[in-house]
Amino acid sequence: MDSAPQQPQAPVEFETDPGRYRHWQVSHDGPIARVKMCVDPAGGLRPGYELKLNSYDLGVDIELADIVRRMRFEHPEVRVVVLSSGTDNVFCAGANIHMLGQSTHAWKVNFCKFTNETRCEIEDATAHSAQVWIAAANGTCAGGGYELALACKEIYLQDDGNSAVSLPEVPLLAVLPGTGGLTRLVDKRKIRRDRADVFSTTAEGFRGKRAKDWGFVDGVFARSKFDAEVMKRAKAIADAPAGLAPGERRGVTLGSIKPELAERARIYRHVELSWDSAARTAQIVVRGPSAADVAVVEGGAASIHAAGDQLWALRAFRELDDALLQLRTNHLDIGLVLLRTAGDPARVLAHDAALWAARDHWFANEVIRHMARVLRRLDLTSRSFFALGDLSPTRAEGERTPCFAGCLLELALAADRFYLLDDPAVKVGTSALNGGALAMSHGLSRAAARLYGEPDKLEALAGGQGLMDAEAADEAGLVTVRLDGIDWEDDTRVAIEERASLSPDALTGMEANLRFVGSENETSKIFARLTAWQNWIFIRPNATGPEGALSLYGKPQRPHFDWNRV
Amino acid sequence: MDSAPQQPQAPVEFETDPGRYRHWQVSHDGPIARVKMCVDPAGGLRPGYELKLNSYDLGVDIELADIVRRMRFEHPEVRVVVLSSGTDNVFCAGANIHMLGQSTHAWKVNFCKFTNETRCEIEDATAHSAQVWIAAANGTCAGGGYELALACKEIYLQDDGNSAVSLPEVPLLAVLPGTGGLTRLVDKRKIRRDRADVFSTTAEGFRGKRAKDWGFVDGVFARSKFDAEVMKRAKAIADAPAGLAPGERRGVTLGSIKPELAERARIYRHVELSWDSAARTAQIVVRGPSAADVAVVEGGAASIHAAGDQLWALRAFRELDDALLQLRTNHLDIGLVLLRTAGDPARVLAHDAALWAARDHWFANEVIRHMARVLRRLDLTSRSFFALGDLSPTRAEGERTPCFAGCLLELALAADRFYLLDDPAVKVGTSALNGGALAMSHGLSRAAARLYGEPDKLEALAGGQGLMDAEAADEAGLVTVRLDGIDWEDDTRVAIEERASLSPDALTGMEANLRFVGSENETSKIFARLTAWQNWIFIRPNATGPEGALSLYGKPQRPHFDWNRV
Repeated sequence: MDSAPQQPQAPVEFETDPGRYRHWQVSHDGPIARVKMCVDPAGGLRPGYELKLNSYDLGVDIELADIVRRMRFEHPEVRVVVLSSGTDNVFCAGANIHMLGQSTHAWKVNFCKFTNETRCEIEDATAHSAQVWIAAANGTCAGGGYELALACKEIYLQDDGNSAVSLPEVPLLAVLPGTGGLTRLVDKRKIRRDRADVFSTTAEGFRGKRAKDWGFVDGVFARSKFDAEVMKRAKAIADAPAGLAPGERRGVTLGSIKPELAERARIYRHVELSWDSAARTAQIVVRGPSAADVAVVEGGAASIHAAGDQLWALRAFRELDDALLQLRTNHLDIGLVLLRTAGDPARVLAHDAALWAARDHWFANEVIRHMARVLRRLDLTSRSFFALGDLSPTRAEGERTPCFAGCLLELALAADRFYLLDDPAVKVGTSALNGGALAMSHGLSRAAARLYGEPDKLEALAGGQGLMDAEAADEAGLVTVRLDGIDWEDDTRVAIEERASLSPDALTGMEANLRFVGSENETSKIFARLTAWQNWIFIRPNATGPEGALSLYGKPQRPHFDWNRV
Repeated sequence: MDSAPQQPQAPVEFETDPGRYRHWQVSHDGPIARVKMCVDPAGGLRPGYELKLNSYDLGVDIELADIVRRMRFEHPEVRVVVLSSGTDNVFCAGANIHMLGQSTHAWKVNFCKFTNETRCEIEDATAHSAQVWIAAANGTCAGGGYELALACKEIYLQDDGNSAVSLPEVPLLAVLPGTGGLTRLVDKRKIRRDRADVFSTTAEGFRGKRAKDWGFVDGVFARSKFDAEVMKRAKAIADAPAGLAPGERRGVTLGSIKPELAERARIYRHVELSWDSAARTAQIVVRGPSAADVAVVEGGAASIHAAGDQLWALRAFRELDDALLQLRTNHLDIGLVLLRTAGDPARVLAHDAALWAARDHWFANEVIRHMARVLRRLDLTSRSFFALGDLSPTRAEGERTPCFAGCLLELALAADRFYLLDDPAVKVGTSALNGGALAMSHGLSRAAARLYGEPDKLEALAGGQGLMDAEAADEAGLVTVRLDGIDWEDDTRVAIEERASLSPDALTGMEANLRFVGSENETSKIFARLTAWQNWIFIRPNATGPEGALSLYGKPQRPHFDWNRV
């Protein structure tokens, strides 16, 4: 199936910074930022393809994700981000087809997932940080390029008789516009579904008036006036009242979280990722906040702001995010991730209470929103997760107990199972952060998803924040399996071995279904309906077989289809 | 991909009747009906497998679908249907694995879709006809067997130290419980998702008390008392007040709709299905009601009831249902279906108005609910649909105009595109039946889905029922492309040829995404998230490759997995 050559490749690193960008230019003018896509054709993450016409690969998108994140933390004064191209006549040609054509199925799926998450982060910035992204398509805007524009709040298109918006994936490549395109057409922009059908099967797309009249763009301007009109619109948004969160709008620079690398581990300050390929398992340990970390947040909004990127809640979750991305891309052979926490659960609750009290401050808000995005990344990671709440006598004093409380309880609630040791030293607890501030992508809090059928327990949990022992946590509905010290080792070992013996594909599908109880929304539809269909189409011969349309793109030979429907 | 042998097989017929059942026994005792699964091992629809242990194939499910439908129309006195097994110690072992193992991907997908629809029909009977299905699992209830039980409102399990409910698909077969199992665990029965995870990876399932305590069944009874306790519960439901729809509860027998078969056509009384394999297109023509048909419904509820299965609205939609099932199973090479109507649109509106006025009568209610189910089958059919509203001078007098009005306008609204001829003789119209009575599986009316972004137009449509010309229909948002007589032939020909040239897989995925705008519910999650994942898993080597778990089931060789996650 994954017939593409699988040379050993250097692991992908997801950390970057503006000094290293190869593909983007960012400039600032007070409340208006400009982000220009200027993809270096020779700057592909992998050999074998050229990133022509502002097409992108994972490396280009890693930089974009960094821009989106830094814009919120480092430039809180920015109200509007104008996204355009540094190349005349081409806004963005979408994901690089040759890169897709030579990639394994797993690479394609992970690439699409990451780009989808980045586009959701753009929408999250508009929704929760009053940073409005607008797409200024100063040239052709095709496939993934138009999908990137669709993630922006408004889309403007140059009217030059040539520039068009299009989703040519179905007619040209026999795959879907899988980076949210189909969903955002009908669910976000509310374009009539029959018109979306015409559009998505018309390779050349729509230009000018038709694009505007049918709702595919918000405005078209002549080439000579394009930049001026877009900037006029940007200024209008920047000048409009926005109910900005209070607090001195001094940006917080995101320094490196570079981990120490061991042979089978990445050791960050608060997070440790280790893996055991033979057992097909990995472990992530998150250390809770220290007393000093708690003192910082208890100092209030100004103290939190002053801590900047060294704030525990920001740093620990950035590290967790990086660990998850490492697992997804560089450790495909790891099927099961054991989630552990180490520290004092009472401190986590104190930390959460203080952070929550400061949530009106723009920076505290950004920190909480960031935690939510990282946890959503966890929900969407196609690995089994078991949270293990046991004691670790070998760890340092103060780190021997688990601390699945508040924001770290979310790890246990995101996990497919939560094993908890029945021991007086083991406590679990809830904070205000479990109430929905860190909600899943389909809108439910993880506690509400876990207790979907037990609203009384959910209410009791919301009312009675604080620590509880293992038995009380079990009765509260938070624990999958509660074990005493005698059974712990054997029972968890068997469960881990059993899990690691099951088919990775079946588990991926099962977890994707069980995790997202309740009704779906636009975002979850992108990761469920759209992505799941794309997953299937990506391994159909009509797309990726030797005579498939994706495989033959750019070659003189025409694709050959199996015409049977299923 | 479809590596299974593809011998030419006899086409599948979906019509059956109680006199021909091979696999089920149905008995009646006033308000309580008993349906017993007694699968004939030698009665497989295809050669090459034995239906042991009450396992099922499409043939078994075609009979079940017939039972569910007839129970509503022919036995309106029935309040409770007790579903059990005629075989001791086995309720149902699920879909036959050997049948799945030897089937093509398309066969598996279509089989799963049909069984899913049948289980939704069971829930629909409980929801809209006060016919409560309860599962009496007098023996092991595994995989698709438990999924069948999950479609019932209540599940009772024999407590004999052996009988269990289980979903062993993931651990034993490396596929999903794809007949709604995963979704119904967490969304319908609201079982905690971590417990559902344990259950769905435990091949032997849960028995007795644990099954009851964790919510997988509603009660367990000792073997000696099982039947008596279940019947006591059935009687309690039958005796409870239910707000039954009025009308004499005399059943309506569903006679055969057997069509006349031509070489490339099936000609029913009101519906004509024809196909052109070279062009990869089919056509369905639905004839609107005659003046006499309208007179029958205008006679009121008693007249409607007296018409029985000859009622236009029942017969025409049964015929349409059969045509859709034929296309899905026996005509995989047909990618595009042209939907046409023929008749007087004013008559359709008069028909709808009279049927709607009688909707409180149990039989009129059943007729409307049936129309809704057939239209949902259309939404879920993986074929492109273009509705074509033009004139047909060669047809008989009174059938030369299209009649996309009311219940037949739903065909145009379900279609991916609606082409309408701009001619004074062509009218379109809405009736009360377009307001939600025939809603899609995710709960929106087709008009609401079509006009998702134009609530004003939707409201105008609801307020101003009646006929409109092509221009007004276009302005109302109902028409994709309005063409005059000069352009009609060329433009529709090009559109049809273009559509038929695109990859069937990509179109299937695209249509599944664009058709279901808005939020998802339990039913649509089954057909979207769950089914789409299963589609992917069904063609992964871990399941269906030569060393996949599904392929090797029952053989001594152990499956070999590619351990990489994606």
